[in-house]
Amino acid sequence: MKALPILAMLLAASASAQAQSSPSPFSPEVRPDRAVTFRFRAPNAKAVQLALEGRQPAPMRKDGAGVWSITTEPLAPDIYGYSFVADGQALIDPSNWRIKPNLISPQSAVAVAGASSQLWEETDVPHGDVHHRFYRSATMGEDSDFYVYTPPGYDADKEESFPVLYLLHGFSDEASAWTTVGQVNFILDNLIAQGKAKPMIVVMPLGYGTMEMARRGWAAWSDRDLQRTNFRQFTEALLTEVAPLVESRYRARKDREERAIAGLSMGGAESLLTGLNNLDEFAWVGAFSSGGLPANFQSDFPALDKESSARLKLLWISCGVDDDLISANRDLKRYLTAKGIRYSDVETPGIHSWLVWRRNVAEFAALLFR
Amino acid sequence: MKALPILAMLLAASASAQAQSSPSPFSPEVRPDRAVTFRFRAPNAKAVQLALEGRQPAPMRKDGAGVWSITTEPLAPDIYGYSFVADGQALIDPSNWRIKPNLISPQSAVAVAGASSQLWEETDVPHGDVHHRFYRSATMGEDSDFYVYTPPGYDADKEESFPVLYLLHGFSDEASAWTTVGQVNFILDNLIAQGKAKPMIVVMPLGYGTMEMARRGWAAWSDRDLQRTNFRQFTEALLTEVAPLVESRYRARKDREERAIAGLSMGGAESLLTGLNNLDEFAWVGAFSSGGLPANFQSDFPALDKESSARLKLLWISCGVDDDLISANRDLKRYLTAKGIRYSDVETPGIHSWLVWRRNVAEFAALLFR
Repeated sequence: MKALPILAMLLAASASAQAQSSPSPFSPEVRPDRAVTFRFRAPNAKAVQLALEGRQPAPMRKDGAGVWSITTEPLAPDIYGYSFVADGQALIDPSNWRIKPNLISPQSAVAVAGASSQLWEETDVPHGDVHHRFYRSATMGEDSDFYVYTPPGYDADKEESFPVLYLLHGFSDEASAWTTVGQVNFILDNLIAQGKAKPMIVVMPLGYGTMEMARRGWAAWSDRDLQRTNFRQFTEALLTEVAPLVESRYRARKDREERAIAGLSMGGAESLLTGLNNLDEFAWVGAFSSGGLPANFQSDFPALDKESSARLKLLWISCGVDDDLISANRDLKRYLTAKGIRYSDVETPGIHSWLVWRRNVAEFAALLFR
Repeated sequence: MKALPILAMLLAASASAQAQSSPSPFSPEVRPDRAVTFRFRAPNAKAVQLALEGRQPAPMRKDGAGVWSITTEPLAPDIYGYSFVADGQALIDPSNWRIKPNLISPQSAVAVAGASSQLWEETDVPHGDVHHRFYRSATMGEDSDFYVYTPPGYDADKEESFPVLYLLHGFSDEASAWTTVGQVNFILDNLIAQGKAKPMIVVMPLGYGTMEMARRGWAAWSDRDLQRTNFRQFTEALLTEVAPLVESRYRARKDREERAIAGLSMGGAESLLTGLNNLDEFAWVGAFSSGGLPANFQSDFPALDKESSARLKLLWISCGVDDDLISANRDLKRYLTAKGIRYSDVETPGIHSWLVWRRNVAEFAALLFR
């Protein structure tokens, strides 16, 4: 009989922090057939759309209580980012705890499970852990951070050392993107449990050489000098700050054949610029849906020649065929072909999206350190 | 001259994921005098309020472009959670990357810096790191996780072992709350650098004994059986799953005098229930703004007597005087006094808020393991 006073007190304590708002409607509701219903209360909005990752915006309909909703057709098992666009303003679903972090456009996310578990889902296999590390970057002149995945069993065996994949996020992401959105820690757990990937350390640094790049938002891409500074300082911070910290703190192998670099979008361009210009450091390079590629391949990759090809254990270049960046990636591949550089040419279904990149990283990681 | 095509391509790639929305207005804008301007586009809303942590909701005003705004008076340096309440619906600020994660009511957050750095800010001192660990909980029958802070220098010295603080979040929080919202890793970094706290490991488990408690939302508190299951299973998972994992993976001291437990709100009640009923395990107990306290102190703390007091190195009970839970906390303190149990009686300014708990944990941590 004491439950009600306790409830009242907690609700009062909660309400004082949250103002007098109505409870949010149930959203998203993933149905047994994998159709998803999204709901959003906006009684006075004139138009609300669902912007779901990989799809065209779709109109939602309002009920008498001012709640807009839409039910999709059954969706393929995946994790989808989404926003509600209310009278032109993209909004996060206030009913959904699952948020896709982003420095420019945070969104919500919904996981749709299938009959069998997907590679990016947490399953009942041994798990690695994810370390978040903080340091002061002399190159950037400000605080920076990075994440480190150590594979299952890392703690138990104090002798074994591991190869390292440096894995770079895209423009507008924060350093957590590959774990929170990409779920790369679960992807690696699953691949390792299935014997499909070698146990490895994955280092996920903050991917800006200067935070000015993120602070300016999309306008940063119209400032070519800023882009060049960003790329140059990123390489410097990675090679002179992050990698030495990792190698002093973790049992990381240091040979070039035990070090890989890969990334998505801006991080794809960074992987190419940092990797191909530092073949003494990396023998494995992956570039997923690269964006912000060099304007002039010859001047940005000055040392690249046929000899480079022999030093590369793998150069893996992927892009979705419906990605607006496909033609820039094809330009790059034509250049590499002309220079006699071998690469794996991977074109997949899909747009510029995490639906593509989770699959890319799984495919790429399985090839590494063989 | 290549900058514009690159920009156009990236914008197109971004837009396809985000639908045709307008850029969000600049928000929040922290001014040099520490006043903060909040802006939110909702052209057809009839009323929008700012719900800022620790304050009454305040009306915002709309301009001709449909952007609502408000400028506060200068705010004391702190980190404030906030929402926009648009026609009764609490919303996350879509312009702000900084989000306060929560399983029921995620919000935005804004940091207001002062002339000197605050204890919870990242400063240029040695940093500990934060480990995120995943495991399958037999007690809960589902996946669970916890975070571990290791102090600066933990990696460098492979021999030294450290005392452990188990630190529990509140109802509706996820396991990351003490680091993402509480910034306890930076608080410890700063206290340790100043010689005000002993280097320690901090373990921050998921604080539910059953996730049903979180899935039901605030309605869970009207189900007394569910609460009891939640508290009982939380203690079991902590003592039989999380603590053994921590002690097998980290250089953690195991003596009761080297183990503390503390938490906020629901986590305060859990600290009391788990700590005071397991004095063989913990000699230090802290309870900040406890919520969901036992209905019957005598039956929930059966073994508590004057002998208990001698075994407790510290029992630290705090609450803000404007917290709706102050009277429940005073009831508890009266009970402890009647039973002859000594405790530190800490009443501070403030409501049920992280503004109180960041200060609580700093004060409490400085007292530990002396």
